[in-house]
Amino acid sequence: MQTDRIYNFAPGPSMLPLPVLEQAAAEMTNCRGTGMSVMEMSHRGKEYLGIFEETKADLKNLLKVPDSHEIIFMQGGATLQFSAIPMNLIGKTGKADYAVTGSFSNLAMKEAKKYGDIHIACSSEDKNHTYIPQQEDISLTPDASYFYYCCNNTIFGTEWKYIPETGDVPLVCDMSSNIMSVPVDVSRYGLIYAGVQKNMAPAGVAVVIVDKTLAGKEHPLTPKLMSYQLMIDTDSMPNTPPCYTIYILGLVLKWLYAQGGIEGMSQIKAQKAKLLYDVLDDSKIFIGCAEKPSRSDMNVTFRIASDELNDKFIKEAKVLGLCNLKGHRSVGGMRASIYNAMPIEGVQKLAAFMRDFEVNNK
Amino acid sequence: MQTDRIYNFAPGPSMLPLPVLEQAAAEMTNCRGTGMSVMEMSHRGKEYLGIFEETKADLKNLLKVPDSHEIIFMQGGATLQFSAIPMNLIGKTGKADYAVTGSFSNLAMKEAKKYGDIHIACSSEDKNHTYIPQQEDISLTPDASYFYYCCNNTIFGTEWKYIPETGDVPLVCDMSSNIMSVPVDVSRYGLIYAGVQKNMAPAGVAVVIVDKTLAGKEHPLTPKLMSYQLMIDTDSMPNTPPCYTIYILGLVLKWLYAQGGIEGMSQIKAQKAKLLYDVLDDSKIFIGCAEKPSRSDMNVTFRIASDELNDKFIKEAKVLGLCNLKGHRSVGGMRASIYNAMPIEGVQKLAAFMRDFEVNNK
Repeated sequence: MQTDRIYNFAPGPSMLPLPVLEQAAAEMTNCRGTGMSVMEMSHRGKEYLGIFEETKADLKNLLKVPDSHEIIFMQGGATLQFSAIPMNLIGKTGKADYAVTGSFSNLAMKEAKKYGDIHIACSSEDKNHTYIPQQEDISLTPDASYFYYCCNNTIFGTEWKYIPETGDVPLVCDMSSNIMSVPVDVSRYGLIYAGVQKNMAPAGVAVVIVDKTLAGKEHPLTPKLMSYQLMIDTDSMPNTPPCYTIYILGLVLKWLYAQGGIEGMSQIKAQKAKLLYDVLDDSKIFIGCAEKPSRSDMNVTFRIASDELNDKFIKEAKVLGLCNLKGHRSVGGMRASIYNAMPIEGVQKLAAFMRDFEVNNK
Repeated sequence: MQTDRIYNFAPGPSMLPLPVLEQAAAEMTNCRGTGMSVMEMSHRGKEYLGIFEETKADLKNLLKVPDSHEIIFMQGGATLQFSAIPMNLIGKTGKADYAVTGSFSNLAMKEAKKYGDIHIACSSEDKNHTYIPQQEDISLTPDASYFYYCCNNTIFGTEWKYIPETGDVPLVCDMSSNIMSVPVDVSRYGLIYAGVQKNMAPAGVAVVIVDKTLAGKEHPLTPKLMSYQLMIDTDSMPNTPPCYTIYILGLVLKWLYAQGGIEGMSQIKAQKAKLLYDVLDDSKIFIGCAEKPSRSDMNVTFRIASDELNDKFIKEAKVLGLCNLKGHRSVGGMRASIYNAMPIEGVQKLAAFMRDFEVNNK
């Protein structure tokens, strides 16, 4: 860790691996002998296409994406997918099931209502989204075009520990805040997507992994750039893609290999999460916001009963370079987002500070 | 010019000013004492909001955007605007006029047909888009919701030298390839937009400048993220914007001030274009592709009668570091895109090479 860098616990955009940033800086005015920045490369030129295809191949390899599925890069973040998913997929029966377990799945559900008949298959709203419903709590629509859920809830700090069983109804999953942190059986999904700005790259790209048999049936008013079929047919380049963001994603993927791939990362993230949850479980002042079985390994939410102490905690942590720990207003307290790029040293430092804080504020 | 950099005449993405790239590299791991890269900053944090608001203020100042209009940043490039424009604006009467003077206006026109009754007000297709129709050639629909045109045609190398007169029908203009190269009276437009990757920044943002009275009447199926009204209401942040691309845009705008703003840039670009057009006019082997009164100052298209010599020209130019001069397949020959960031030295070197090439290949 450079001494002038902070530990940034923001929920996204958030930290990127330092070696990635250093390489990006070194390649900024002349990338690999091309005499250009990646920002300046034509997206149709061989220099950029090399970067693009390698990034896509690394994603396919790391996530073990089967040939039945295509990886596409889209703009507009998760929010544009809230619309793209129903516009492309709901036409089959006009119906879809949504699991509402947090803020983003709720927004996705509301947007989908513009395009079809939406059924809330389960919701954790009754307890301010502090838990993930179990399989037996899910009410399925047998002829739904798809079942939608968000497998990690950034704001509330909860994470699905199982894949919902939906029979023949394709699963659609927003993995924005935990993709690449845990192995996933892609073949079980009709569509997986993730805004990259939490766990993969700077903001500006959504990675979409879609079962090719589901594409090509979009609503006639679907904007051209939002057609999954067109994106498949043009290898994500009907127009200029966000080239530089995809390049940084590529650098992050190389770094991920060096961490042992997703399996390696999964072990590291479990260690990091345990450091903080152990403090919470041992503590008499810190209260975990999420129910234990539903705790997220990516976003650790906690609070102290006193608002004054919450403020003091955030302020003192910042002095130590432990930044952006304030929780979302709908939960309060603190939130430590410990995505892949957060070094374990940052989490150790936070855990130590939490123990010290408790001693000093009993 | 660093000796290891090329002169990149690509049509976009293309060159960025070297001081911008150098500053971006220097700020990559710790931007201005924040201990973070701009890529890592929360879009809602004060560090990033400072950058964002300054960029927007500089755009407003440089382009002299009146208070009647709002500047918004959207993802999806020009192509998503091909859909967003009719989805947001055509509802007034269900009709719109399109001027088809090149490839991109043609694509915009075709996309708009999904959403309403589209009338081709003029077209230069009869002569492979080598000219811009004059005012008297335009057939206007009196109750059109808007009149759409693209004021610089990247592929064909033509540029509108006048603003079409359309009475009460709002003008909508794609300025992707010449924005910031010439002063524009924004008040005359209902909407101006530009994908930034040609003349302003790396790919990943479209700048949209919209008369606020036109927003808020979008089609009910408009994806949330494509509603101009929502973008106005949330200051372009209903979700995470492409933060880093906007930061680079901000650096380019600071550089633009140092060139004398748009007025200064306009003089430089006229000098650069004259260097190349003078060679064409003096030449016995080079043939300009665009008709003289319609020539673009941004994209200079030319060819030699012999395909063999075209290939030889491109090959020999590359050896000199004059790269990406191959013309688009629909025009052939050569194209020199000389956007704002192309130094005059690059154009001088190209002009000198053209004269030498003619002497050596008479």
